[in-house]
Amino acid sequence: MNFSVIGTGNLAFHLIKMLQTHGHVLMQVVGRNENTGRELASMFSASYINHTGELSKMNDVVFVAVKDGAIAEVAASVSHEIPVVHSSGNSSIQLLPQNSTGVVWPLFSFSKTKTIDYASIPFLIETNNPSLFDLLFDVFQPISGKVFNAPESDRRKVHLAAVLANNFTNHLMFLADEVVSEIPLPFDILLPMIHDQINSASHNTLNANQTGPARRADMKTIADHLAIIKHNDGLTEIYKSITNSILATYHGKKL
Amino acid sequence: MNFSVIGTGNLAFHLIKMLQTHGHVLMQVVGRNENTGRELASMFSASYINHTGELSKMNDVVFVAVKDGAIAEVAASVSHEIPVVHSSGNSSIQLLPQNSTGVVWPLFSFSKTKTIDYASIPFLIETNNPSLFDLLFDVFQPISGKVFNAPESDRRKVHLAAVLANNFTNHLMFLADEVVSEIPLPFDILLPMIHDQINSASHNTLNANQTGPARRADMKTIADHLAIIKHNDGLTEIYKSITNSILATYHGKKL
Repeated sequence: MNFSVIGTGNLAFHLIKMLQTHGHVLMQVVGRNENTGRELASMFSASYINHTGELSKMNDVVFVAVKDGAIAEVAASVSHEIPVVHSSGNSSIQLLPQNSTGVVWPLFSFSKTKTIDYASIPFLIETNNPSLFDLLFDVFQPISGKVFNAPESDRRKVHLAAVLANNFTNHLMFLADEVVSEIPLPFDILLPMIHDQINSASHNTLNANQTGPARRADMKTIADHLAIIKHNDGLTEIYKSITNSILATYHGKKL
Repeated sequence: MNFSVIGTGNLAFHLIKMLQTHGHVLMQVVGRNENTGRELASMFSASYINHTGELSKMNDVVFVAVKDGAIAEVAASVSHEIPVVHSSGNSSIQLLPQNSTGVVWPLFSFSKTKTIDYASIPFLIETNNPSLFDLLFDVFQPISGKVFNAPESDRRKVHLAAVLANNFTNHLMFLADEVVSEIPLPFDILLPMIHDQINSASHNTLNANQTGPARRADMKTIADHLAIIKHNDGLTEIYKSITNSILATYHGKKL
C-alpha cells in the first residue's frame, strides 16, 4: 500500500512506523509546522509537503492524524478522489467528504518516547465501502491480529469505556498520590497491590476482584474515609459517587 | 519467633505461610469454625484451639487476623500478658487491651488461590513499645525489605489511598465492562491500554500519563459521553465528579 499522513504528532509517528515495518510505502507527510513535518518525513525517507492539494493520486490511503477538532477542516481540503481515513475514537466518519472514507482507531495511548508492542494493539475499523474495509483489514490484521469492525456508535462506547478504565483510573491514582503526599510514606508502596489487581483483571475477574469497604458495606470505614477528606469537596464527590455505585451493585443500597 | 494466629481466612493463611517460610514457629491456630481451624492448623503442623484462653504464654506474638469489626471483641478475650498484633489498615491499635500491642498491615489484597510474591509486599508497622517494634521489624524486613513505621493516622491515609487506587479503579473497569457489554466487542480489548498505563505508573509519571477529554478540556467529547450515559444516574455522577476533578487540576475550571 502507498500511504501518506496528515499530521506530525505521536499518532502520525507510530502509524508510519508500524506501516513501514510491514512493508507499506510512506509517500508524503503533510504538516502545518514545516520543521516537525520535514523531520518526520526525512526520518522515514518520504517527501514533506505543506499543502494537502499536493497529495499524490498514487496514494491508496491518506491518514488524517490530527486533533479531533481539526479533522473536518483538514479533510475538506483533500481531493475527493483520494481515499481518506481518520484515527479518532470519538469522531464521525461523516467528517470526511471523500468518495471513499474510513476510520482506523488504534485502542492505545501513544507517546513518542516509549517503545510500543504494536502486536498488542486492537484496531477498530469502519469504512463507507467494502473494498476499503478489505484493504485496511489486510493492512492492519498482520500488525496485531486484533482488528474489529466497529461502526461509529460502537466505537463511541469503547471510547467512553476507555476513558473510564484508563483516564479516570489514572486520575484516581493521582488523587491517591495526593493523599499519600501528606505523610512521610511514598506513593509507590501502593504499586504492588495495583499491579497485582490489574494483571489479573479481565471480564471474568472484575467481580471477584472487587474488595474494599463499599464491597463489604463497611459503613464505619466509609465514614472514617469521608471524615479524612471532608475539606476536599472534589474528592468527597468522587468518593461518594463511586462508593454509591459499588453499594448499589453489590448491596442494592446507597449512602 | 513463636507465634499464633486468631482467624482462619486468607490473611491468616498467608501470614502463617510467609512466617513459617522464614523459620518462625506456628504454635496455635484459633478459629470459631472448628473445621476450617483444624484444617489450617494441620496444614502447618500446629495445634487447633477454639478458646483464646488456651493461647500459650510461650507465644512471642499472637496475630489477630479477623474482620475489622471483630478485632476488639476477640482481643479482649486474650491474656494481657501476651503481645497481640492486629493486621487491619483502618483499625486503631487502641482496640487491643494487652500490655504489649502492635499493628502489622500488609498492603495487599490476599486471596487463598493465587500465588503471591511476598517480597513485593510493603508492611506498615505500629507498636506501643520499642521492643515489639524491633521484634516485628526483624521478622518482616527479611520477608519483603519494605517495612515502614506508620502511626495510625498515616496508616489510615494509606488505607484511603489504597481504596482510591485499587478498589475504585477496579469498579471503574467493571463499569467500563458494562458499557462495552452493550456492543459486540469484548471488554478485554481495553486491557493492553490499561496494562501499558499501569506498568508505567509511579509518583513521577501520573501527571504525564493523564490523557483523555477532560485533560484536554475537550468539552464536546465530554458532552458526547454524558449523552451516551444520560439514563444511568450513578455513572453520570461518577463521570461528572472525576471529569470535574481533572478539569480543576489541569484547567482550573469545572463542567
